[in-house]
Amino acid sequence: MNHERVYNFSAGPSVLPEDVLLKASKEMLNYSASGMSVMEMSHRSKDFLDIIEGTEKLMRSLMKIPDNYKVLFLQGGASMQFAMIPLNLFTKNKKADYIDTGAWASKAIKEAKKYGEVVVLGSSKDKTYSYIPKIDSSTFSKDADYFHITVNNTIYGTRFTPENIPNTGSVPLVGDISSNILSEEYDISKFSLLYAGAQKNIGPAGLTVVIIKDDLLGNAMSCTPSMLDYKIHADNDSMYNTPPCYSIYICKLILEWISARGGVKEIEKMNKHKANILYSYLDESKLFKGTVVPEDRSLMNIPFITGSEDVDAVFIKEAIAKSFVNLKGHRSVGGMRASIYNAMPVEGVEKLVDFMKEFEVKHK
Amino acid sequence: MNHERVYNFSAGPSVLPEDVLLKASKEMLNYSASGMSVMEMSHRSKDFLDIIEGTEKLMRSLMKIPDNYKVLFLQGGASMQFAMIPLNLFTKNKKADYIDTGAWASKAIKEAKKYGEVVVLGSSKDKTYSYIPKIDSSTFSKDADYFHITVNNTIYGTRFTPENIPNTGSVPLVGDISSNILSEEYDISKFSLLYAGAQKNIGPAGLTVVIIKDDLLGNAMSCTPSMLDYKIHADNDSMYNTPPCYSIYICKLILEWISARGGVKEIEKMNKHKANILYSYLDESKLFKGTVVPEDRSLMNIPFITGSEDVDAVFIKEAIAKSFVNLKGHRSVGGMRASIYNAMPVEGVEKLVDFMKEFEVKHK
Repeated sequence: MNHERVYNFSAGPSVLPEDVLLKASKEMLNYSASGMSVMEMSHRSKDFLDIIEGTEKLMRSLMKIPDNYKVLFLQGGASMQFAMIPLNLFTKNKKADYIDTGAWASKAIKEAKKYGEVVVLGSSKDKTYSYIPKIDSSTFSKDADYFHITVNNTIYGTRFTPENIPNTGSVPLVGDISSNILSEEYDISKFSLLYAGAQKNIGPAGLTVVIIKDDLLGNAMSCTPSMLDYKIHADNDSMYNTPPCYSIYICKLILEWISARGGVKEIEKMNKHKANILYSYLDESKLFKGTVVPEDRSLMNIPFITGSEDVDAVFIKEAIAKSFVNLKGHRSVGGMRASIYNAMPVEGVEKLVDFMKEFEVKHK
Repeated sequence: MNHERVYNFSAGPSVLPEDVLLKASKEMLNYSASGMSVMEMSHRSKDFLDIIEGTEKLMRSLMKIPDNYKVLFLQGGASMQFAMIPLNLFTKNKKADYIDTGAWASKAIKEAKKYGEVVVLGSSKDKTYSYIPKIDSSTFSKDADYFHITVNNTIYGTRFTPENIPNTGSVPLVGDISSNILSEEYDISKFSLLYAGAQKNIGPAGLTVVIIKDDLLGNAMSCTPSMLDYKIHADNDSMYNTPPCYSIYICKLILEWISARGGVKEIEKMNKHKANILYSYLDESKLFKGTVVPEDRSLMNIPFITGSEDVDAVFIKEAIAKSFVNLKGHRSVGGMRASIYNAMPVEGVEKLVDFMKEFEVKHK
């Protein structure tokens, strides 16, 4: 790591690969002998078309996206998807099943209720969302237009593991993968729609990736703005209007970085290794304690507490002095949270744990 | 100009100040001793709050925005505003007046028709939008919820001059200033809402600036997605969700660049000087001819033709060889178009005209 840089455990926007930033910095005034920055390029230019097409191709190959899914590059983040999904998917009974696994799932539920009936099949709110509720599939609404889950819960540090994705049969499954896209292998064909704000694992804030099965296109409600109609974006290859070009370019550099590391399978190994370093220590520590049940733990966001707000505050302060930044937990959980996305190097986690051990010795 | 860079006459995304790109390049890995890129920063961090608040402050001061207007940093471009405006402003009679001055005005009209009645008061479609229609104010709808104009027409090269802004009395005036924001002084108080996609004069694609009088907030239609409700963004200081942070940072650098040049009044002088160099030549040339009536000419987008498609094609090709790029006109006008936004240096226009003169001598 460049000695002037910090270890950034921010939940999002978050750490990006240093190699990507270096490349972006070098190409800022002159991309690939074009004589201009990617920021200055017409989105209809050959250079930019190569970028956006290359980004899609890499994403398809890395995530093994089947041919009958479109990959869309949109704006507005997950919050915009919370409305876009019901506007486009409430096509028959205007009814959907949701699982409430945290603040973002709750926001998605609230927004969907504007446009139809929402059945909340289960919630882990009773224990500050520290687990993924187990739902009996016999309770799923058979007449639902879709079924929504938040695959990884950034604030609470839980996730639906790849083995634990609900089987919703013929009801389209929709998943928010904002905070764990490309972090481990998921079977895309289990979902009909996946979406992710880019600002955790794949780029700068302002880009949203939507992966949508093509049979869901073309039935948006009549009040849907053109910009919120998936079919319009699909028909125009994400160029209905000017896309967030520079963010797409950064996304491409990140996908190339993932490819160079061997793809998602290898990234997953690395992420499991990193998460294991921290979880193993949390499980043995007498001072620090993870807040999530072991079977639902996120590989990306790891909340932990000491049990004393005062000690938490001292830890966070001393951590900053050692260049471990953005470890303060979300106010709804308290304590600390280490977000260790793809771009967090192993040494960042190792050094954090070393520091936690030293801190524990001093504070036991 | 850096000798590897071209003169980029793209209509958008378009040329940015070289100083801004240099600064962004230098700060890419470590912004202001934070140890991270602006792209990696939590949007709730002190560093980023300073950036977004600083951007707003600069914009308010440069554009002389009155205190009873909110400045919002949104996503989705002008195309999203085409829906957001009726969704938020159709509060009484669901009726609005529009003036059809080109492709973008037409798109705005089409979108607004989804949500209410649109009266098209005038159109210059009969002459390929080469002028701004003169509208008798006695024909304005007195019961309109708002009145919409596209202040500068990127494709056709026309503009409502600051003196020629319609006086709509108590009906709120809405203006699309995507392609001429901060290019010359307009009296903001004549408008109730102004909006601009950033990718021409103020930053990268993916950021949209909305300047809205606060009495228009809080009456969105019930089907309005939260992300399309101006009041929600205003109440949250554009942080209802993660804003396009990096694009806001680039916008701030551009506003600082404008300030350092003496503000909008000085930029306007420079823009008039640049436009005059090109228009004067077009008016005297025997080969090239401007397509817009003199009184409605844009300072930003200057279309011109030779009258022969073959000669146009040769010109565009030879221009590229001399590093004057993106001069091909929009297919609906044909010929050429030089977009000379704030960041286009005077020498870029001078050299282009020198080249046009040489070309004319060869091709007369």
